[in-house]
Amino acid sequence: MVEMIWLNGMLRAAGAARIDPADRGLLLADGLFETIAVRGGQASDVERHFARLQAGASLLRLSIPLGLAAMARALNETAAANSLEEGGLRLTLTRGPAPRGLLPVPGGQPTLMITGFSLPPPGGPVSVIIAAQVRRDETSPLSKVKALGYLPNILARFEAADEGADDAILLNHAGRAAEATVGNIFVKRGGEWLTPPVSEGALPGICRAKLLQAGLVREAPIEATWLYEAEGLCIGNVLSIRAVARVGGQQVPQAKLQTSIMRL
Amino acid sequence: MVEMIWLNGMLRAAGAARIDPADRGLLLADGLFETIAVRGGQASDVERHFARLQAGASLLRLSIPLGLAAMARALNETAAANSLEEGGLRLTLTRGPAPRGLLPVPGGQPTLMITGFSLPPPGGPVSVIIAAQVRRDETSPLSKVKALGYLPNILARFEAADEGADDAILLNHAGRAAEATVGNIFVKRGGEWLTPPVSEGALPGICRAKLLQAGLVREAPIEATWLYEAEGLCIGNVLSIRAVARVGGQQVPQAKLQTSIMRL
Repeated sequence: MVEMIWLNGMLRAAGAARIDPADRGLLLADGLFETIAVRGGQASDVERHFARLQAGASLLRLSIPLGLAAMARALNETAAANSLEEGGLRLTLTRGPAPRGLLPVPGGQPTLMITGFSLPPPGGPVSVIIAAQVRRDETSPLSKVKALGYLPNILARFEAADEGADDAILLNHAGRAAEATVGNIFVKRGGEWLTPPVSEGALPGICRAKLLQAGLVREAPIEATWLYEAEGLCIGNVLSIRAVARVGGQQVPQAKLQTSIMRL
Repeated sequence: MVEMIWLNGMLRAAGAARIDPADRGLLLADGLFETIAVRGGQASDVERHFARLQAGASLLRLSIPLGLAAMARALNETAAANSLEEGGLRLTLTRGPAPRGLLPVPGGQPTLMITGFSLPPPGGPVSVIIAAQVRRDETSPLSKVKALGYLPNILARFEAADEGADDAILLNHAGRAAEATVGNIFVKRGGEWLTPPVSEGALPGICRAKLLQAGLVREAPIEATWLYEAEGLCIGNVLSIRAVARVGGQQVPQAKLQTSIMRL
């Protein structure tokens, strides 16, 4: 099947979709994204994703070219065009093509792109390391939004792969646990599930927000040593909640935070 | 005149050049760049730029699809195709289009793009602020390479514009001066010119390297308060060295570091 991409209002075959070489998303990482779950052919939690995108766009002084309802339609159209019943969508918003210069000139046209993807079958528990090379900068306002710059996380993932692990947990500058490379972390301690506050460098994840709202998880700063002492450890995003079986080679007791992200 | 872009081995009109929507440079800021001065129709300091690109590519585990000689040819061809006698080139290297996932799959084809630009006439002294919102993370290995992620610098530039200033100086997490948003800083103190070491979060700039090599500048950590006490202050990159007239609204004595970047 031909992959279909929604790009600036038009659905077209991926091979025919063109990003301008002057796009600031490419040249300066000047943009944001959202990863959205598709369930029963419908984009999930669109209001929450839209709100987070708005917060990011406000920080970046970017305008979102679609309102909530139009964005939901575009997401669902992209899912349908790719015959996605269960899977995911990625929405990318950049400041668009622009003349040279760091300070954007007014009147630019943002780039808004939506792509779809299917999901691999649910995997078993994962092994993680604590990244030594990169830290999450909890002092940056950019840690609170879902910006395009994922190189620190890519470097952490290289480090994990080098040690034969599946993922890495990033510490913040205070030496406490902030998040995994593509998900929030949930640590069971003293019988309850904890997750780092956004002020600790945790991305305000949507799976995380739903777990907090459901009262299944409580916010607390997580000392790095707690990861080794955990009574259970999970990594979650809107696509899955996965149990961690090992941290830095050391076994973690298996404890269930939630049977499935779909039940949230 | 039609702008010509060198893209993966071919020169073509900018309007006909296409970046793949799946390019990891766009989606994850997974790439590097260089800004290169053109003097007399020739790309300057190509060996230094190539060496810095290699250092970045090594950290990112990216392969550079061209050797030094072929890159110099591509740069000069792009300058010629755009009739650039004096100006600049931007070389962008990304990991290229790839399937979804943070960890790159082997065998991907990097994207290498070169664009040309003319320069505005040399400007007078600039005014700067010290950015309050974002800091340069001197602990990150990414601060030592020229990676695509420029959002912190864009936010700093917004802050400068809000205060009617031209540029912003970023402090590192230790509270010392690291660099400006698109150039290194040079601070005159006790009669000599100082610039922060790379370990302080300064990008290993090529203008900076040449000034150090010429013995015109010495490396030293720069306390933020020294900016206000400076006997002279400049911001430099390969395109220009500009004097700073005001820091945070306070006047800075005018002192010449170097009459021109062209003489280095």
